[in-house]
Amino acid sequence: MMKFIFASNSPRRKEILLKFNIDIKFVPHHFNENAVDKNIEPHSYCKIISNKKADSIVDIYPNQPILSADTIVLSPNKSIFEKPRNEQDAHRMLRALSGKKHQVLTGVSIIHKQAKINFSFTETTLVEFNNLRDEEIYYYIKHFEPYDKSGSYGIQGFSSIFVKSINGCYFNVVGLPVSRLFYFLKKFNLVQFS
Amino acid sequence: MMKFIFASNSPRRKEILLKFNIDIKFVPHHFNENAVDKNIEPHSYCKIISNKKADSIVDIYPNQPILSADTIVLSPNKSIFEKPRNEQDAHRMLRALSGKKHQVLTGVSIIHKQAKINFSFTETTLVEFNNLRDEEIYYYIKHFEPYDKSGSYGIQGFSSIFVKSINGCYFNVVGLPVSRLFYFLKKFNLVQFS
Repeated sequence: MMKFIFASNSPRRKEILLKFNIDIKFVPHHFNENAVDKNIEPHSYCKIISNKKADSIVDIYPNQPILSADTIVLSPNKSIFEKPRNEQDAHRMLRALSGKKHQVLTGVSIIHKQAKINFSFTETTLVEFNNLRDEEIYYYIKHFEPYDKSGSYGIQGFSSIFVKSINGCYFNVVGLPVSRLFYFLKKFNLVQFS
Repeated sequence: MMKFIFASNSPRRKEILLKFNIDIKFVPHHFNENAVDKNIEPHSYCKIISNKKADSIVDIYPNQPILSADTIVLSPNKSIFEKPRNEQDAHRMLRALSGKKHQVLTGVSIIHKQAKINFSFTETTLVEFNNLRDEEIYYYIKHFEPYDKSGSYGIQGFSSIFVKSINGCYFNVVGLPVSRLFYFLKKFNLVQFS
């Protein structure tokens, strides 16, 4: 099996991928995410960012498949929620998500220069939040870490109790839609489980 | 905060609950699950089992809230899939789930004898499987452990790539619907996050 490169140091993506018995090396990408115009349509936006992350290291690993991903939270009124800047910003996002449905989008890219593969897709999951009380939001912000998470919550941690239900891929909300990723890795003959 | 008793030794339920900063002790229950008639309507079935698990240790812990849970997989043609007996049985279940939707049901009980609380509910999540190739099913059975899992798969492990999408609570499929559990624990004043 080939050795994969993952252009990300996200501990959550690492944890997801380490279950699959595949040889994978996690490296930082060399792309400045702030260089992308945030007014692009969100599904394209995260696909472009993800593609540019993988592309930024393609000349270092031209003979290996490079994977990358970018996750954003699209608020109920369709603005992009990224990582919160401070407590107030985290509270603003969680208040906006409370009692409503929002979308989580992950752009994923697979680039293998030698094999002429350069493919990206965006996976969408619908997430419905419970009604949150302010005390609960502040308790969460104080005792848990919203600051490294798009939209200020992590579906896998304490804030799992904020989530009433989801429709779509759970791991897409964590940061990597494994089911669809492996569908394409198998299609491109980059992995084989048999 | 009160010390909870959880009538289960399931490592997955432990892992889920350890995120919540609550004081909780995991103990085995004293109930023989095979004593329950499997022809009972499935939503009632897992609520009854869960209730009997908690009830089996209520006289040991009359002053503490006891929690318990029971998860079953309901196949596309509505038969109960429990833990597989062997490789063939695991293959039979996964083949039946392939390309189709099925339900995962978890019965959850909260018993606190002193406070006169005896409450149970069943949470349902709809799970849609990808089309599985036989080689992939056998690869999974050989390299990963289906034997301790109702329905022969774990949504959190390698078999996450079998799952196309879910509708409902993800943790309900893992074995404990935390969002709804904490809704009721807060309602009964057994936990407070503030």
